[in-house]
Amino acid sequence: MAQAHWCCCSWLVLLCACAWAHPKPVDLRGEDVRNCSTSPPYLPVTAVNTTVQLIALRQQMLTWNLSAYIVPDTDAHMSEYIGKRDERRAWMTGFTGSAGSAVVTMGKAALWTDSRYWIQAERQMDCNWELNKEVGTSPIVKWLLTEVPDGGRVGFDPFLFSIGSWESYDVALQGSGIELVSITANLVDLVWGSERPPVPNQPIYALQEAFTGSNWQEKVSAIRSQMQKHHNAPTAVLLSSLDETAWLFNLRGSDIPYNPFFYSYTLLTNSSIRLFVNKSHLHSETLQYLNFGCTGPMCVQLEDYGQVRDSVQAYASGSVRIWIGTSYTTYGLYEVIPQEKLVKDTYSPVMMTKAVKNSKEQALLRASHVRDAVAVIRYLVWLEKNVPRGTVDEFSGAELLNKYRGEEQFSSGPSFETISASGLNAALAHYSPTKELYRKLSTDEMYLLDSGGQYWDGTTDITRTVHWGTPSAFQKEAYTRVLIGNIDLSRLIFPAATSGRMVEAFARRALWDVGLNYGHGTGHGIGNFLCVHEWPVGFQYSNIAMAKGMFTSIEPGYYQDREFGIRLEDVALVVEAKTKYPGTYLTFEVVSLVPYDRNLIDISLLSPKQLQYLNHYYQTIREKVGPELQKRQLLEEFTWLQQHTEPLSAKASPAASWASLLAVSTLAILGGSF
Amino acid sequence: MAQAHWCCCSWLVLLCACAWAHPKPVDLRGEDVRNCSTSPPYLPVTAVNTTVQLIALRQQMLTWNLSAYIVPDTDAHMSEYIGKRDERRAWMTGFTGSAGSAVVTMGKAALWTDSRYWIQAERQMDCNWELNKEVGTSPIVKWLLTEVPDGGRVGFDPFLFSIGSWESYDVALQGSGIELVSITANLVDLVWGSERPPVPNQPIYALQEAFTGSNWQEKVSAIRSQMQKHHNAPTAVLLSSLDETAWLFNLRGSDIPYNPFFYSYTLLTNSSIRLFVNKSHLHSETLQYLNFGCTGPMCVQLEDYGQVRDSVQAYASGSVRIWIGTSYTTYGLYEVIPQEKLVKDTYSPVMMTKAVKNSKEQALLRASHVRDAVAVIRYLVWLEKNVPRGTVDEFSGAELLNKYRGEEQFSSGPSFETISASGLNAALAHYSPTKELYRKLSTDEMYLLDSGGQYWDGTTDITRTVHWGTPSAFQKEAYTRVLIGNIDLSRLIFPAATSGRMVEAFARRALWDVGLNYGHGTGHGIGNFLCVHEWPVGFQYSNIAMAKGMFTSIEPGYYQDREFGIRLEDVALVVEAKTKYPGTYLTFEVVSLVPYDRNLIDISLLSPKQLQYLNHYYQTIREKVGPELQKRQLLEEFTWLQQHTEPLSAKASPAASWASLLAVSTLAILGGSF
Repeated sequence: MAQAHWCCCSWLVLLCACAWAHPKPVDLRGEDVRNCSTSPPYLPVTAVNTTVQLIALRQQMLTWNLSAYIVPDTDAHMSEYIGKRDERRAWMTGFTGSAGSAVVTMGKAALWTDSRYWIQAERQMDCNWELNKEVGTSPIVKWLLTEVPDGGRVGFDPFLFSIGSWESYDVALQGSGIELVSITANLVDLVWGSERPPVPNQPIYALQEAFTGSNWQEKVSAIRSQMQKHHNAPTAVLLSSLDETAWLFNLRGSDIPYNPFFYSYTLLTNSSIRLFVNKSHLHSETLQYLNFGCTGPMCVQLEDYGQVRDSVQAYASGSVRIWIGTSYTTYGLYEVIPQEKLVKDTYSPVMMTKAVKNSKEQALLRASHVRDAVAVIRYLVWLEKNVPRGTVDEFSGAELLNKYRGEEQFSSGPSFETISASGLNAALAHYSPTKELYRKLSTDEMYLLDSGGQYWDGTTDITRTVHWGTPSAFQKEAYTRVLIGNIDLSRLIFPAATSGRMVEAFARRALWDVGLNYGHGTGHGIGNFLCVHEWPVGFQYSNIAMAKGMFTSIEPGYYQDREFGIRLEDVALVVEAKTKYPGTYLTFEVVSLVPYDRNLIDISLLSPKQLQYLNHYYQTIREKVGPELQKRQLLEEFTWLQQHTEPLSAKASPAASWASLLAVSTLAILGGSF
Repeated sequence: MAQAHWCCCSWLVLLCACAWAHPKPVDLRGEDVRNCSTSPPYLPVTAVNTTVQLIALRQQMLTWNLSAYIVPDTDAHMSEYIGKRDERRAWMTGFTGSAGSAVVTMGKAALWTDSRYWIQAERQMDCNWELNKEVGTSPIVKWLLTEVPDGGRVGFDPFLFSIGSWESYDVALQGSGIELVSITANLVDLVWGSERPPVPNQPIYALQEAFTGSNWQEKVSAIRSQMQKHHNAPTAVLLSSLDETAWLFNLRGSDIPYNPFFYSYTLLTNSSIRLFVNKSHLHSETLQYLNFGCTGPMCVQLEDYGQVRDSVQAYASGSVRIWIGTSYTTYGLYEVIPQEKLVKDTYSPVMMTKAVKNSKEQALLRASHVRDAVAVIRYLVWLEKNVPRGTVDEFSGAELLNKYRGEEQFSSGPSFETISASGLNAALAHYSPTKELYRKLSTDEMYLLDSGGQYWDGTTDITRTVHWGTPSAFQKEAYTRVLIGNIDLSRLIFPAATSGRMVEAFARRALWDVGLNYGHGTGHGIGNFLCVHEWPVGFQYSNIAMAKGMFTSIEPGYYQDREFGIRLEDVALVVEAKTKYPGTYLTFEVVSLVPYDRNLIDISLLSPKQLQYLNHYYQTIREKVGPELQKRQLLEEFTWLQQHTEPLSAKASPAASWASLLAVSTLAILGGSF
């Protein structure tokens, strides 16, 4: 997990934010926040003066005859992480949190965000802004109905609206006398002008063949073949999500933080390939790689990124049918395609194909997880030595981990902002330390580390929780129950095509048994040097059915408000299960390879089968990571690994009940099958 | 479970039919079926000559200028069980199966049904009819598009179409040039004429106060209070499902098989109560009970059943908003209410309120299950003695069970057609024996009994599977895994408001572990002398979240094609769970009270906790049913009950593994908490 996001693209972020959000009143005592009720108002030094940009935006609104203008928090690709130049809402409001929408009228300016960000918003916003402590379209519409006069026009940038969010505004405002006006010229950008950060000047590059599952020509052919088989006979597929184009062409870039993507769209027709991109970022060898300059169905035609709307509109004027993924295509493209020429599925064929990794992609992802384990183990060993000295804090720790990951082969930076959280900070779902704000690590507290790397062969994401001192009995129990949830879901055997939502409760049952639970999802897909939260795989309602070759995280947790947080996250591959009776059954094979904290496991709570599974997993870690550590002369780490993967037995724990003890021993004697 | 239906009303029957349907080619060899390819065609004696009614129907179609007419298999209330007078499809086609739609054009006649009924259709239909082996709207629409000329009119009775099925036809035919024509005069009824069975001449009666959770005035007030609180401020609730009106007024009738209902609708407004009913079926004391004749918000106005459409239309012409449950309201009423005057929810407030039983209703339902257990135990004891004599068959057995149930206090007949299935018959989901077609019970085969009763205090539904001889190792394993599924779901602790679909996999895991599964749902709601399959409670996607006070069946199974079938079904009450840490958690309390077959349990497969749960359940059976048997002087049955509820221990089974044995014993020594 990274922050509160749960998806590669932010189109479903709210789902996660809501699950996480604590609907409790926020205690502002002791916080240095604005006070707009005094005269003059009190503003902390962190508050941003937004008067100038508000005046300029209202000037633009006058030009367009608008009563209100909506400023969302996304980019034109519904990306999870957005570039600096897309941080329009942050620039307008001063508030830099990752979730929140703003609306400006001629007299008012308002922000909506969830409880994770209320304090931050009160610190960063000046008194031009009112803070609304709600999320979703409904409260914004309600506000608009009060603030906008009858006949008033509400402007929005259609490229920052998903089809779904446009529909919800449209339906809610129908018959209200308020007109929703799509304006492709973004008014914030017009105000921002030359101050707006440019697209990073980094080249778009082709992945080496060693790091790709198939070449782009094979992928293009496979997608065209799906177009032919589709009962609605689409003539083209329109790709809007940045990872779709990156995956299709095996191209990567650096336009977005944490994701190796570049601003782009693709219109793949049955006879042409049109890539919309900043052409200047393509070197000549990349152009050659793309068969640029020739004509024919396997030659890539380059068009300017900004041309996409006009080009799609022109294409849509012909006798065509355009296949789109409705979950993440923006209204900016949707509105230029006549309804009868649309072939709508929730996810495009590229999204669906990308979800199932072929054997080479599986091997690549596995390999990246072995090296990633080396970096995490190096960090855990270092922590074990240095935390007792009192010299480590959350931020410096995260920096060191980034350094270790950076030293791994094929490293290309972190896959999301590291959650390095000690004690009560780990109970905050979105917490990441900063250079200014961090907590010291201590042997008196639990420490939660949720982090991942981008490597040319794969993307990783792993969470471990540790305690270097003496955990409380409750901490041990909660940790062990989270671990049991992880184990029970990981070892589950289920029929092919089962939905994740059908089985995710297995990760919760051990917690439910005693009245505990966690308020987030249980896992998400992950890519090959792509998104760390890759749709549409996972355990949520909107995820598709599990299939052999998919990768998903499995990450139950437990959070004790204002005290500690536990999460144990592994990435697992969906594989065929061998069952006693014939049938197509699946199970998970965990590819994250870092041992759990023995100090926090209450073995007496584990059933013999859970213990057997755990010891089998530890054996796998030894076999896969041990040789890598030896090869790299990381002997201290090798010794640590051997110690931390010693088979656990009920005997070893004084707390173990005799029941488990006897059962395990006997199972061992009888060689009971797992 | 009863037959393949999964719901009180048939509006979701297809869901079940599809899950059950085996998409395998049906082997017609040896079956006495029609052969329309010979000249003259071969027709078995079971085939019905439908030439006359087809000619008459086509005459009607000419009058209405129709190219096609659709004949569905439901009634005007989307009931699960329909009266004889509503068996229009059966009368038109000759095919009497419970699921299937027919369409007649001027030149052709076609039936669509699922694989359970293909042989039956080939036996019962003459060569006027073509059989289409598909289900759902799409294949029918595809056929209509081929058979109906451009500009052609397709007629249908709007009272036999749910809103959903009308929408699917409407959407599919849009732009096709074919017009869908709603005709309230049912053309089949016009043809059927005086031959059509009348409404049974049975009175509608009020339940005694002892058998009701609250009186009708309290229920009316509660629903009106929900109307006031609803954000769309409905002025009326329209009740279309027969159990809604029966529940609201605590009235029962005998118009429908297995369900104590009477043909009716209710329009409950904020100032009036309008009951649409066959007035002649109400005695004077019932009229008095309903406050008939007075005026005021608590006086029931009676209107003729056939008046409902006109009355609703007239009411809808005012300044009103009518609240409906969209899942089961028919298009016949939906189409006369302007869209802006509809308040649409999936289920009406009556359906939602009825789903949660108050403490008196809970006590009533529990009590009916104790007496029902007596009847089932009497039957099982009798079978144990008589099956070895070779004198029992599926049909006579079912008759005897009905007799035993009939001897119980407050009995009002079976709650569905008893599934009494021996050997391979139990692998057929919809099987019920008939006077003509049955199988002998034998000590060589397993026997599956799925049955239930209607009692004035409650409706019951229970399935037990037994073997009086020596089951195979596979039969024992499959049975035990089904039992484990039942136990694991029954003892699950889960957060309040969890959906059934989130947890139903716990009933499957023990089967999945070895590559086995079952193709039907895991449970359904049940009523107080109402529907045996009462929506919207259960474990399917369309079911609402679990809440304290709901009753649901829990019924995993396993079916070995052409060999045997296993199902273990109990009814359980949703109760609050006591958890170690505070929180609102729920669990189930099983109220069905019949022991499982010891002969089929492989104790070595049960975990100590599962065994402990089972023994606790057996203790409950002893405590609740034992005294009832003693009171009734059923001493042989009492002895049987004591034997069959002896605590099970791993020791008792020679097959028990030492692991379980030791674990259980040790747990017993330590007094490990459950």
